[in-house]
Amino acid sequence: MYPPVIQKLIDLFSKFPTVGPRTAARFVFYLTKLPQDELEKFLDSIINLRKAIRVCSFCFNPFDTSTAPEESFCPICQNASRNRTLLCVVEKESDLTAIEEIKRYKGLYFILGGTLSGLKKEDVKKLRVKELKERIKEPQKFGLNADFKEIIIATNPTTEGEVTALLIERELKPFNIKITRLGRGLPVGGELEYADEDTLGSAFEGRK
Amino acid sequence: MYPPVIQKLIDLFSKFPTVGPRTAARFVFYLTKLPQDELEKFLDSIINLRKAIRVCSFCFNPFDTSTAPEESFCPICQNASRNRTLLCVVEKESDLTAIEEIKRYKGLYFILGGTLSGLKKEDVKKLRVKELKERIKEPQKFGLNADFKEIIIATNPTTEGEVTALLIERELKPFNIKITRLGRGLPVGGELEYADEDTLGSAFEGRK
Amino acid sequence: MYPPVIQKLIDLFSKFPTVGPRTAARFVFYLTKLPQDELEKFLDSIINLRKAIRVCSFCFNPFDTSTAPEESFCPICQNASRNRTLLCVVEKESDLTAIEEIKRYKGLYFILGGTLSGLKKEDVKKLRVKELKERIKEPQKFGLNADFKEIIIATNPTTEGEVTALLIERELKPFNIKITRLGRGLPVGGELEYADEDTLGSAFEGRK
Amino acid sequence: MYPPVIQKLIDLFSKFPTVGPRTAARFVFYLTKLPQDELEKFLDSIINLRKAIRVCSFCFNPFDTSTAPEESFCPICQNASRNRTLLCVVEKESDLTAIEEIKRYKGLYFILGGTLSGLKKEDVKKLRVKELKERIKEPQKFGLNADFKEIIIATNPTTEGEVTALLIERELKPFNIKITRLGRGLPVGGELEYADEDTLGSAFEGRK
Repeated sequence: MYPPVIQKLIDLFSKFPTVGPRTAARFVFYLTKLPQDELEKFLDSIINLRKAIRVCSFCFNPFDTSTAPEESFCPICQNASRNRTLLCVVEKESDLTAIEEIKRYKGLYFILGGTLSGLKKEDVKKLRVKELKERIKEPQKFGLNADFKEIIIATNPTTEGEVTALLIERELKPFNIKITRLGRGLPVGGELEYADEDTLGSAFEGRK
Repeated sequence: MYPPVIQKLIDLFSKFPTVGPRTAARFVFYLTKLPQDELEKFLDSIINLRKAIRVCSFCFNPFDTSTAPEESFCPICQNASRNRTLLCVVEKESDLTAIEEIKRYKGLYFILGGTLSGLKKEDVKKLRVKELKERIKEPQKFGLNADFKEIIIATNPTTEGEVTALLIERELKPFNIKITRLGRGLPVGGELEYADEDTLGSAFEGRK
Repeated sequence: MYPPVIQKLIDLFSKFPTVGPRTAARFVFYLTKLPQDELEKFLDSIINLRKAIRVCSFCFNPFDTSTAPEESFCPICQNASRNRTLLCVVEKESDLTAIEEIKRYKGLYFILGGTLSGLKKEDVKKLRVKELKERIKEPQKFGLNADFKEIIIATNPTTEGEVTALLIERELKPFNIKITRLGRGLPVGGELEYADEDTLGSAFEGRK
Repeated sequence: MYPPVIQKLIDLFSKFPTVGPRTAARFVFYLTKLPQDELEKFLDSIINLRKAIRVCSFCFNPFDTSTAPEESFCPICQNASRNRTLLCVVEKESDLTAIEEIKRYKGLYFILGGTLSGLKKEDVKKLRVKELKERIKEPQKFGLNADFKEIIIATNPTTEGEVTALLIERELKPFNIKITRLGRGLPVGGELEYADEDTLGSAFEGRK
C-alpha cells in the first residue's frame, strides 16, 4: 500500500516496543512532516545517545558517560552509600527506574534483560542468567566491592514474571544466599471482592 | 416513554446495586415474559429469603434460620473453632464471602454496612460504628464469648475504604487493642512499572 | 458457600439478562436489607406488572392494559396515524423503544423475540418467524388494518443480528414485498481510520 | 531521573503521535540496546525517507520520488483513470490510506493536515484551508487537469471532525459546488439499542 521508503521505516518502527503497524505509519508521517532542524535534532539525539550511553559492566543499567568517558559503572553501582549486601533482580531498565523513584530501596540492581514465557532453552539464553550468577559469586571479579546477603527477585507478578522468578530461584539455589520475592497484596484502588485468592491471602498474612 | 406499571418497576430496579435504567428495563421485560410458574418461584424465593434470613446479632452477617428458627448468631459466630481474639471489619457481606472463600482467616467478622466518601455526620451515622464499639467492648453483652486482641480493618484500598478505615481507627483508639490493616503489595497480574509508590514500597517492605 | 435460601435466589437472579453470580449476590443482599415497606412495593410492582401488562396480539410489544382491560393491541398498533405500509422487525422490546425515541420512524413494528447465533433448528424455533409471516400475509386476520409494502429488518449489525436478518430475508422472499435493512455508516464519535471496510464503504455510498 | 542524553531523546519521542513519556523511555532503551547495524539501518531509513519522500503539490499526500525525482504529483493525482470531478477532503494521511484500502472511491483527495478543537484563528491557520480553496478554484494553476463537481468532506464524525467540516463547508460555500459528507449509520458490530439518535436516524433514512 505504502511506497517502499515509507513501508521500510514502518517495518522498523513496528519493532519498537508497544508499536503496531498503524502507529508506526503515524510515526513515519510525523517524521515526513517534521521541520528539517527538528529532524536533525532527533537524529543527533539518537547518535549522541549511542555515543554517550554505556551499559554498566556490573548491573547492565545504561548510563551517561559524557562527563566520565572512562567510567564502566553506573551511578548506582558507583555510589558508596548504597547497601552492597542487597541485589534486586529486575526484568528491564524501566522497572529499575520505577523502583528508584519510590526511594525506599537502597541496594544494588541487576537487569535481567527480559522474561520467559516458557522454559525453552533459546528463550532462557536471552536472559542474563549466567551473568547474574557470575556477579553474585564474585562481584570483585567485575571490579565491584560487594558481598550479597539477599537477592530480591523483582520480576512482575505476571505469568511470565513468575516463570522467570522460578528459574532464577532454581539457578541461585546453590549459592545458599537468602532469596526473596516482592510482597503480594491489595494494590491501591483495588477491591477486596475482586482480588484473587493469592493476593487476598497475602494481604491477610502481610497485615500490619 | 414506558407505560407507568413498567416505569415504576424500572425505577425500583434502578435502585439495585450496579443497575442503571437501561438494564432495569431489560429486567422488567425479562419478568414480563417469564412463564407464570417461574415468576412464582422468583417471588416465593424473595419471600422465603426474607422469612428465613436473619441478620446475625453480633456481626450483621445474614444467615439462614430455616433449620434453627431461634438462632440469633450466624454459623461463623456460632463456630467454636473460630479464633475469638481476631475481629475482621469489612464493608459489606460480599467482602466477608470473598475472605471466607480463601479459607485462610479463622477469626470473626463485623459488617460495617458501607463506606464513607467523606466525613459528613449523616454518612458516618449510616455505618455501624457504634455497634462495632459496643461489640468490641463487651462481646458477652451480645451473648458472644470472645476477647478481641486484634481488629483487622479490611476495607478496600480505595479512597472511600481509606477514609472509612481512618475513622474506625480513630474510634477504636481508646480500646487500646492492636489494630491492623490488610497488607499492600503487587497484585497477581500487576506490573511493577505501573504500580503506584505506596503499592511498590509495600511490596519491597513485605518481601519474603 | 451461601445458605440455600440465598443461593436459590442468586441462581434465579443469575438468569436475568446481563447478571452474573456476583451481581446476583449483591441483589440478594440488597433485598435482605430492604425495609419491609419497600420490599412490599417491589413485590407489588412485579405482580401489578404481570396483571396490567399484556403482549400486543399483533407486534408482541408489552403494553399497559390498566385503563383498557379489553384492549389487545399496543398503543402503536392502535394508532391510526401510523404508517400501515411499513413494518419494522426488531430483535427485542428495548430496540423498539430505542427506535421510538428518535421519533423518525412512523410505521408499525414486530418483535422477533431474539437472535440466532447459528441456524440450529431449535434456535430458529424460539424466534417468532411463523408469527411474523402470518402477520405479513394477513394482518386483517389478527384484527389489524394494514397492507405492508416494505419490511425493514432492524436487527443489530452484529454477527447474530446478521444471521437472523438473512434467515428473515429468506423466509419473507415468497411474499414479494420490498425488504430493506438499516443503513451502515460511521457512527457519531467513530474514526474513519479504524472503520471496517463495510462501514467505510457504506459511508461513501451513503454520502449526502 | 534519567541522564540528560536519555531524557532529551525521551522528550523528542514524547512529541510523536500517541507517545507518552513512559513509552518514549521504552523506545530509548530499545535504541540503546539495538545492534549497531540495525541502528544504522534505522537512521538510514529516516534519511532516505526524507530524501525520497515529497509531498504532492496538489493533494499533500507524501509519495516516493526515488524512481521519478522530478515528479511533483503523487500516484493518485497522476493517475489518469481517477475521477477528476470528485475531491475527498481528509484530515490526515492515514485517513487517505484507509479510504484507498476499501477500493471503492475513485476520485482525488486533499489532505487538510489536522482538525480543529475550536474556531481559534491560530488553529484554523494550521489547516490547509487556503490551499484547498485555491486548488478547487483553479486546479490547472497547480498543473492538475480537474473540474470538481463534488467535494466530499471526510472528516471524522467526532466533535473535532464536525467543527472542521462546518468550517470547510462555510469556506467552500461561495464556490457553488455540491458539498457532501460521509453517511452516518450503524457500524458493523454496533448495537441499535446503544446508538445515538443521529446515528440511528441516519440508519433509518439510509435503509436499503
